[in-house]
Amino acid sequence: MDFSSKILENAVNEVSRLPGIGKRTALRLVLHLLKQPAENTKYLSEALLHLRNDVKTCEKCHNISDTVLCDICQNPKRNPEIVCVVEDIRDVMAIESTAQFKGLYHVLGGKISPIEGIGPQNLQIDSLINKVKQGEIKELIFALSSTMEGDTTNFYIYKQLQKFDITTSTIARGIAVGDELEYADEVTLGRSIINRIPFEQSIKS
Amino acid sequence: MDFSSKILENAVNEVSRLPGIGKRTALRLVLHLLKQPAENTKYLSEALLHLRNDVKTCEKCHNISDTVLCDICQNPKRNPEIVCVVEDIRDVMAIESTAQFKGLYHVLGGKISPIEGIGPQNLQIDSLINKVKQGEIKELIFALSSTMEGDTTNFYIYKQLQKFDITTSTIARGIAVGDELEYADEVTLGRSIINRIPFEQSIKS
Repeated sequence: MDFSSKILENAVNEVSRLPGIGKRTALRLVLHLLKQPAENTKYLSEALLHLRNDVKTCEKCHNISDTVLCDICQNPKRNPEIVCVVEDIRDVMAIESTAQFKGLYHVLGGKISPIEGIGPQNLQIDSLINKVKQGEIKELIFALSSTMEGDTTNFYIYKQLQKFDITTSTIARGIAVGDELEYADEVTLGRSIINRIPFEQSIKS
Repeated sequence: MDFSSKILENAVNEVSRLPGIGKRTALRLVLHLLKQPAENTKYLSEALLHLRNDVKTCEKCHNISDTVLCDICQNPKRNPEIVCVVEDIRDVMAIESTAQFKGLYHVLGGKISPIEGIGPQNLQIDSLINKVKQGEIKELIFALSSTMEGDTTNFYIYKQLQKFDITTSTIARGIAVGDELEYADEVTLGRSIINRIPFEQSIKS
């Protein structure tokens, strides 16, 4: 692209570093900002800087938080004996929005991925094992993506936990509510048959 | 969405004000910044602020520029007698990338759109008429979108120019190079027949 302004080119380059945003989209966004009042750009820049410099992660569960312990870990109504292991804070938000889980979380910060150079030491796995060692946790629920990386991470943690007296489970894989059987992939459909649940249980939930 | 941090929520809200970016995408972008080194967020914020505060528009053609006159208007090799009228600077970039135009531009800054509350007074139309009055321009090429708003804008300017001795033209509408006839819409195909060009001319370009 042939820019008529170095300042514009620089702004487009910086915006297009964001994932999923190419040069054309970046140009569209940047020209939009130019048409808006200057305060909008100021607020946007400040919000990003404030976030990057001042946001904390919860000491206990590594969820993003404005305080040392996040609201969930601080909540006395949550059950600290059940911990749900997730990849990142978006998963916490997704599970919270179901209102079906009353335990605490543990945010790993990603999953083991040799291709991207992410090993167990880059994730919050040691701190999870330490929490288990302290003996407060009775059950761990793995809620990681159903991908090779997710399964690898599950298995790695599971192996480390075998010496402890703790229940582990993974969230159910199966046909999504509202989905038609004929369009489901074979692996999912196969698993949903193997892991079938008693009918009485299915009508309760 | 249920945010665990006000700072995060604020950043997501600001990013999702950008056109075409919803809350989910904004969250993904913002979490990406959190995983990157803090300098990246700093560079991004600075680039946006620098752009919004310091970028100029060329005094002559209203293209975005770092200097009082843009590089195109300053270039002595460009022909100031032919001026191409476009909506915004993306159109300048698109036409420049063809390397087929050696005249100057005039950026209107949009098109007449009563629905969006954009009238002729919000666009750089008066300054175009003034340039024509000064007598340097021999030909105006209208290169606006082929929409109702684009046509309205074309016609509005055309009417204002009738008292001047000046040639006006619009860019050709027709079947795109590489397109199949059967998939073309009827209006475009119809226009391409009405505005057919001598075969000798077509093989030259």
